[in-house]
Amino acid sequence: MSRKTTCLALSGGVGGAKLALGLAHCLEPTELTIAANIGDDFEHLGLTICPDIDTLTYTLSGVSNQQLGWGRAGDTPTFMHALKELGGETWFHLGDGDLALHVARSHRLRLGESLSQITADVSQKLGIAARILPASDDRVRTIVQTAAGPLPLQHYFVRDQCAPEVSGFIYEGAESARVNPEILDTLASPSLSAVIICPSNPYISIDPMLSMPELTQALKRCPAPIVAVSPIVGGQSLKGPTAKMMQELGAEVSAVTVARHFTDFIDGFILDPADAKLESAVRAEGINCHMTPSVMKSLDDRVHLAKETFEFATSMR
Amino acid sequence: MSRKTTCLALSGGVGGAKLALGLAHCLEPTELTIAANIGDDFEHLGLTICPDIDTLTYTLSGVSNQQLGWGRAGDTPTFMHALKELGGETWFHLGDGDLALHVARSHRLRLGESLSQITADVSQKLGIAARILPASDDRVRTIVQTAAGPLPLQHYFVRDQCAPEVSGFIYEGAESARVNPEILDTLASPSLSAVIICPSNPYISIDPMLSMPELTQALKRCPAPIVAVSPIVGGQSLKGPTAKMMQELGAEVSAVTVARHFTDFIDGFILDPADAKLESAVRAEGINCHMTPSVMKSLDDRVHLAKETFEFATSMR
Repeated sequence: MSRKTTCLALSGGVGGAKLALGLAHCLEPTELTIAANIGDDFEHLGLTICPDIDTLTYTLSGVSNQQLGWGRAGDTPTFMHALKELGGETWFHLGDGDLALHVARSHRLRLGESLSQITADVSQKLGIAARILPASDDRVRTIVQTAAGPLPLQHYFVRDQCAPEVSGFIYEGAESARVNPEILDTLASPSLSAVIICPSNPYISIDPMLSMPELTQALKRCPAPIVAVSPIVGGQSLKGPTAKMMQELGAEVSAVTVARHFTDFIDGFILDPADAKLESAVRAEGINCHMTPSVMKSLDDRVHLAKETFEFATSMR
Repeated sequence: MSRKTTCLALSGGVGGAKLALGLAHCLEPTELTIAANIGDDFEHLGLTICPDIDTLTYTLSGVSNQQLGWGRAGDTPTFMHALKELGGETWFHLGDGDLALHVARSHRLRLGESLSQITADVSQKLGIAARILPASDDRVRTIVQTAAGPLPLQHYFVRDQCAPEVSGFIYEGAESARVNPEILDTLASPSLSAVIICPSNPYISIDPMLSMPELTQALKRCPAPIVAVSPIVGGQSLKGPTAKMMQELGAEVSAVTVARHFTDFIDGFILDPADAKLESAVRAEGINCHMTPSVMKSLDDRVHLAKETFEFATSMR
């Protein structure tokens, strides 16, 4: 299949995957490439688990659990019940069907396949036309620095339910990780119309990617417009601990903080009407603004926001 | 817990586990030790799967699927369905609950725990009072020599459903494998009252253990009586390919063939009344005979055969 990518989205899990799904609906399938965060990948029970890649995969293939936003619809908990009986670690829920992906992937990784090869094959098997690219085939792992000491991301996020106070982040391996060459090719391609930073947590979903120096350089050099969508609307997280983290890091809990976070390379920023009063502060950063509802409840919301974001970006070419 | 083993059973999977369950019912729990075949263990999807240990574990803990004889009762197939969707290998069925044991064990083995430590811990978690000992913590793997070439046991047994014609067996690793020291201690113990060879396939369930020279020597030196129960009754396999293998190997399909197979070290042999006519042929091998029904359909059958076998053995002390 010859690819003519016109849109590259950078995405974490649940929130980002909503916009990615919207983009998949309003672009030709082969026009969409998604760079997926790998900073929250982890090894658990001897399995390599890639929550953001999997959420994107399940969301775009239509098998996702729409109530939770992650995992598979109609999945069963028999594995977890039996694991508990055996005294195994049960803080991270693995549905029986979800487990197939973790077991198959872990096996293939051990046999020497790359994460991107496996991800592409899984996408193909599940009928996903868009391209999901792990940000790197090398290992990058987010460590959350907290009042309780440094915690691997999933321990902070799932086991400790984001309770410990956050003081910073380390992205282990990022300095030397090579960015997925398909992402770099896409960013340098003259056919690229837009780059979209999905409404994912900047610190744990986007920064693990940006902490690879090659990627930040490529974004700065990228000829296509780059637009970010805020995961903070009306001073609150749409999902997860973004607002809590911002507060603990001493930043204003506001979409402006998100815009400033990406100020080095974004050209445009989506503001929800609830944040209309922030427009001048964003513009003061030299960033264009486009006002459109950015809380995605329905599929229509996802498609609408995707269309508005993509068109806003291409209008700046 | 101080152990006073009075009975050591050598067992494969389904058939052997039936008698082991009978023994667990008619002895004090701590009096029973079971040496489990490891020759059909294999690596699949990156998991270490130990079918005979697991069948014993599930049977003795009461969670087994009694229709199948293997796996867990009430298990779900969600993992297999999802694996198929991903294009994974589906010839070996892994129930969702069963998978918990494989995942947990594989992880612990990679962390450096021994198979016997893990097996003991799982037994304890599932409330099994009898002691299940993997025949070795080293790797022994049965290879079936067939007209279609050499096949790892599970490929022959499950994937190819025992169709290829068998010409022999190789027990990879057996020459250098060290027998589980607890089995050797048990065999040398003055408190041991009986050794029972369960009605398991001699070639693929018992021989992988006997192919470890240390074990055969220990059986020959063992002061306690050794009694075998035939998996061939009335010229037919009670389960699985034992009869088919015997025929293909050019042996008579008969309990006598089983008795002769173990003639070097057994003192007694259980004959089903259906095989009454074989008694003189068995006695001609210098082996004592005891006649009792040995087809186990109900739990009562299992307990009855266990009691008869144990008492027959101890009567020869």
